[in-house]
Amino acid sequence: MSPAAQPAQMPSPGAGALFLVEIHEQPAALARLASRAADLEAVAAAIRRLGRPLIRIIGHGSSDNAASFGVYSFGLIAGLTALRDSISLPVYYGAEIDLRGSCVLALSQSGRTPDVVEYVRRAVTQGAYAVAITNEVDSPLAEVADAVLPLSVGAERALAATKTYTAQIATLALLPAYVAGQGELYSEGLIATAETLRAWLPDVGATLTLLASQLCYTGRMLIVARGPEFATARELALKLLETCRIAAQPLTATELAHGPVAALDPLFPVWAIAGADAGLQTVVEAVARARAAGATVIVSGEAASSLAGAATIPVPRAALPLLAPVLSIVPGQLLASALARAKGLDPDRPAGLAKITVVP
Amino acid sequence: MSPAAQPAQMPSPGAGALFLVEIHEQPAALARLASRAADLEAVAAAIRRLGRPLIRIIGHGSSDNAASFGVYSFGLIAGLTALRDSISLPVYYGAEIDLRGSCVLALSQSGRTPDVVEYVRRAVTQGAYAVAITNEVDSPLAEVADAVLPLSVGAERALAATKTYTAQIATLALLPAYVAGQGELYSEGLIATAETLRAWLPDVGATLTLLASQLCYTGRMLIVARGPEFATARELALKLLETCRIAAQPLTATELAHGPVAALDPLFPVWAIAGADAGLQTVVEAVARARAAGATVIVSGEAASSLAGAATIPVPRAALPLLAPVLSIVPGQLLASALARAKGLDPDRPAGLAKITVVP
Repeated sequence: MSPAAQPAQMPSPGAGALFLVEIHEQPAALARLASRAADLEAVAAAIRRLGRPLIRIIGHGSSDNAASFGVYSFGLIAGLTALRDSISLPVYYGAEIDLRGSCVLALSQSGRTPDVVEYVRRAVTQGAYAVAITNEVDSPLAEVADAVLPLSVGAERALAATKTYTAQIATLALLPAYVAGQGELYSEGLIATAETLRAWLPDVGATLTLLASQLCYTGRMLIVARGPEFATARELALKLLETCRIAAQPLTATELAHGPVAALDPLFPVWAIAGADAGLQTVVEAVARARAAGATVIVSGEAASSLAGAATIPVPRAALPLLAPVLSIVPGQLLASALARAKGLDPDRPAGLAKITVVP
Repeated sequence: MSPAAQPAQMPSPGAGALFLVEIHEQPAALARLASRAADLEAVAAAIRRLGRPLIRIIGHGSSDNAASFGVYSFGLIAGLTALRDSISLPVYYGAEIDLRGSCVLALSQSGRTPDVVEYVRRAVTQGAYAVAITNEVDSPLAEVADAVLPLSVGAERALAATKTYTAQIATLALLPAYVAGQGELYSEGLIATAETLRAWLPDVGATLTLLASQLCYTGRMLIVARGPEFATARELALKLLETCRIAAQPLTATELAHGPVAALDPLFPVWAIAGADAGLQTVVEAVARARAAGATVIVSGEAASSLAGAATIPVPRAALPLLAPVLSIVPGQLLASALARAKGLDPDRPAGLAKITVVP
């Protein structure tokens, strides 16, 4: 095992140990992904052959959060329209839509989510080119798809996703980069960003221990972001929901201004993710409105220092702007880990949840 | 003024009077929309000439909620892919995406939302065919678009949208119907559904007065639905947020199972919208999980009687399945009206909100 494959810090055994170990496995997992140029180039070539295809991304839970990022990465890196496609429209409602010329990217950690597999099976029949992005190359999803991009992060044993999520984000940055002839740039950027994460991980904890204790009795929270970082807001909200039982709701900066701002009060913390990008101004404005409504504001992200929060969690600069979400979710993962343990909950096995969601 | 144009019931003047009057203006407004066959046929013909275009729907707030419905109505009635497109990707992040062959449907009550106007201006330059669906035919949005479908519901003076939302839903059902050669069927269906609403409106209030008093001290709520009715869940959550300061979060039945179910407790009401369609089974399952977690369950919708709730609000059957969301939002509007008044809030002018949201 190379040094990079060692977790940066080993937690003590017990509740949440798997979750914490898997958070620390991310630098090595991301660096490994960057070396899979051949797989990525083959899929990118197939996408280019489709002309300018519509990219239909599907997944549930953390995978759907990663899909939010794909909308931006495909748009900004490759100039392609990507959408989080409806699974229910074909699978439950039986819509007959001609998918010729479409590329489907199906995200599923396990490769066994039944309606994701069923969507892909139908999509291939209807003329789409389908790629399985999964951690399990021997899975029903990999079998029905035209191509497989393995996440290769090793078994994810904690129920709450961590390393599969960041590997999905990285894959959704690398793939449009390969399509646009920037594969090498992004692969090198990912290696550098993985190294930044490895060096940063041991330091993040200190800020978060205090924040975790402050949030021990918080029942709800809003998480605000915009653009590529909206995926981070969604994933952070999901971590807080599933591991800490906080009713956290992700909102774009614009959505906040459209109603939720009326329901804020001083006991309702707002966590803003401030990316150093063109959406920053809308987040700054949303934070000002939240603060005017009396809300306590927590700020993280590359541009965290440009907003004064009751708690501020700076995130180091990624090697390329569109790799920022690989780093910016990590404080949220570590906070969820610390807060769950402070509340006596087990993030490895949250009550009432299953790793593979089966909805009839 | 024809009898159908009379509000079914006049509220007493004072706080929330505009909101309540506008709720009651909906039957007449919907019936008027059904008579605009020429406008709809012209736009439908232009869409057919594009071949099988991608339908890009944009809007904020209630307009974005209506867009969720458009994804289903275009998919199920016309077999076309519709997406809620990202406004920020081109407008704030400067993505250069080739839009030739796309049809943009821009939803804005006022026709003056700056980033919606800017999105359309760029989209037309990049080759899209753009339709403004607006209540203001003399607006910047109408000016930049290739065609206008007026909502024609009369001035909406309450801040919280009601009649413009249902008119958007109706337009998003009629337009794909005209594209698919079913315009007359849907126009007649809408007239019949408007008449059902007119007859039903005076009766809905009684159930809701009790429910409003029960919810007076509720700070948060989950609203669950699936498929075409997910738009109703989003719009109901927005009404409760902006008029009643309840932190209401809309979730699909699948999303609920992916984490939020872990944050439920007996003090956390779950409102399920049970449509009589192929998604019902997933809503039934979600309600069972919510109840198992101890949540109090409120059920509304055409299939409400198939789920036992602490409160059950049946909704009459619409003339066509895809017109159900025109009726199913109305109990939510009336509840928001009753609850806001019970809490001493003014739904006509909620604190901190503006009718046209301008985000820098």
